[in-house]
Amino acid sequence: MNSRSDEILRFPSLTLRRFATEVFRRSGVEDYDAEQAADVLCTADEWGIRSHGLARLRSYHDMFVNNRINAKAHPRIIKDRPSLMLVDGDNGLGLAVGAFATRLAIERAKLMGTAWVSVVNSNHFGIAGYYAMQGLADDLIGVAMTNTPALVAPTGGVGRRLGTNPLAAAFPTAYEPRILIDMATSAISLGSVENARREGTQLPTLSIVNSKGEPSTDPKDLFEGGALLPLGGVRNSGGHKGYCLAALVDLLCGAFPGAAWGPFVPPFLVDAVDSERVVGQGVGHLFGFISIGAFEDPAVVRLRMDDWIQTMRASQTAEGYDQVMIPGDPELHASADSAEHGVPLELSVHNELLALSEKLGIVYG
Amino acid sequence: MNSRSDEILRFPSLTLRRFATEVFRRSGVEDYDAEQAADVLCTADEWGIRSHGLARLRSYHDMFVNNRINAKAHPRIIKDRPSLMLVDGDNGLGLAVGAFATRLAIERAKLMGTAWVSVVNSNHFGIAGYYAMQGLADDLIGVAMTNTPALVAPTGGVGRRLGTNPLAAAFPTAYEPRILIDMATSAISLGSVENARREGTQLPTLSIVNSKGEPSTDPKDLFEGGALLPLGGVRNSGGHKGYCLAALVDLLCGAFPGAAWGPFVPPFLVDAVDSERVVGQGVGHLFGFISIGAFEDPAVVRLRMDDWIQTMRASQTAEGYDQVMIPGDPELHASADSAEHGVPLELSVHNELLALSEKLGIVYG
Repeated sequence: MNSRSDEILRFPSLTLRRFATEVFRRSGVEDYDAEQAADVLCTADEWGIRSHGLARLRSYHDMFVNNRINAKAHPRIIKDRPSLMLVDGDNGLGLAVGAFATRLAIERAKLMGTAWVSVVNSNHFGIAGYYAMQGLADDLIGVAMTNTPALVAPTGGVGRRLGTNPLAAAFPTAYEPRILIDMATSAISLGSVENARREGTQLPTLSIVNSKGEPSTDPKDLFEGGALLPLGGVRNSGGHKGYCLAALVDLLCGAFPGAAWGPFVPPFLVDAVDSERVVGQGVGHLFGFISIGAFEDPAVVRLRMDDWIQTMRASQTAEGYDQVMIPGDPELHASADSAEHGVPLELSVHNELLALSEKLGIVYG
Repeated sequence: MNSRSDEILRFPSLTLRRFATEVFRRSGVEDYDAEQAADVLCTADEWGIRSHGLARLRSYHDMFVNNRINAKAHPRIIKDRPSLMLVDGDNGLGLAVGAFATRLAIERAKLMGTAWVSVVNSNHFGIAGYYAMQGLADDLIGVAMTNTPALVAPTGGVGRRLGTNPLAAAFPTAYEPRILIDMATSAISLGSVENARREGTQLPTLSIVNSKGEPSTDPKDLFEGGALLPLGGVRNSGGHKGYCLAALVDLLCGAFPGAAWGPFVPPFLVDAVDSERVVGQGVGHLFGFISIGAFEDPAVVRLRMDDWIQTMRASQTAEGYDQVMIPGDPELHASADSAEHGVPLELSVHNELLALSEKLGIVYG
């Protein structure tokens, strides 16, 4: 561990993985799932997506302690069609349930050309891109999505009706780094609004509305009954398209397979009050994989993906950019930085982990 | 036919369908495909998407006359995996090739739970939502996408590198109208910019950039070397997510199956100059269908979709809205209006059709 600033501490990846694995184990999770869950969380920190990393470990632990997540869950296939399966997550850890469903979809896609797995009765699964990337070594394009607790206003509406409902996809390449799309369908993330409130800065225009449904740049308005706007903002700026995307993810992950949906998706909070209506079973996910070897030699397709990247990269750059971005660049740069300098943790997260380490008697750091 | 204003004329749907079918027939297209193609174009006008309707009939005819599209095309399956097929469109009419591939995907999805069909060597297929809706009667969720000629700048770049790459999805319902998502992944459509130029109005902020890559609200800038921005605008307002979506569609429709991609997608123009490099075969599409009866009684899933719609609709409305929008509302309202008052055609389109009718000796109106 070496400290580079007052606020960010750096740790070797292995230290954090071991610690997180042990916390999950002591929370009652079986060995394999505990390692799996730790891998998803630590990968988020390595990618620079701190809101989805070890900052959530304490919440996961509390959810187990309060029996809101089933530590001994055994997810199982409850419907099996040739290229479409339904998994019941048994109210288990989303990080483990997601990985289980991903493995099923990957094995089936290799046989069928493409295969998709719906999941109901699950919980928060962390970073969607993690799952989409699991098929890369097997020559598979991966798609992953999940619905999440409602924070986003529909077009024409005031309240929170849809989650930030992320959508991820990963594409295999030859010599270039993989292409990775991992995006919330809201204009801005909850984490960014929280940061702005803490730092006293204004938000970009058209990222949130206040409790009356009026666009606002004051982050406080979100926490006083406001809502996030969908990607694109309001209708005039294309916000109806972001709303369509959030709806697409919610319908595919929730209303189709029978998970909760819209305002009824359960929040990721120990002391959550149940919504006025209970609809469907838990959080829903959808995973899909497509074989790039289905039509021709996968090596040829991988080279075409490289060509695509190089063509975009060769475009003339806009003011303020060194090069045209390729989807997945930010995660790539953060991973390289984490590998060189250690995985960054905020001091507040470090202190939470220290407290957990004392409570559970686990060596940390 | 009855004229309601100086600019918009109204026609019975059947009149337009008969005329368009006959134009395709006289262009050399076989009967079944001619009727199919006319149906896609006329549906666009009925839905109020005039840029994709009969306004393009003249261009299609010219493309046949100039042998840029193969009127006698026979699309065929060239790779057949259990749940993934590849169709070669034989450089045929996208409107007919798309319908062929859609039928294949629907029949296979009923057997497999889900099935997907990639298409290469095709052309402009009209409105994506048309294809996504074809599985509704068979209890199928439908997905349709296509890449299109480059108009959109990548995040960090100046030039046109990706198409407006539309994405569509349709969901079956019980008593409520179907849910229909049909959206370009650009911030604004080319048609909207053309309209603004004609009418001398400014564009919403963050919808286009000029030839230097600077955001502009002057529609003329697009036609002087500028580009459309992706959904979300610039990076600070979420434009990298719209870029990711455009990339997703391009990679799935183009680089994966071996169609043209990115800046190499052939333009829909009779006198188009070939791009500096020829890459892949024609325009690429992807169609996918998912059986809502795969896991339970489809009637139950349809009722859940109704519940989803009613829940969104019951949300408190924002200033200026009568009700919260549901994806597919605009197309629904336009269809009802077309059914009541006749299908709207702009006078300029009407005049083009008149000229075609004289040239080909086909009765019109």
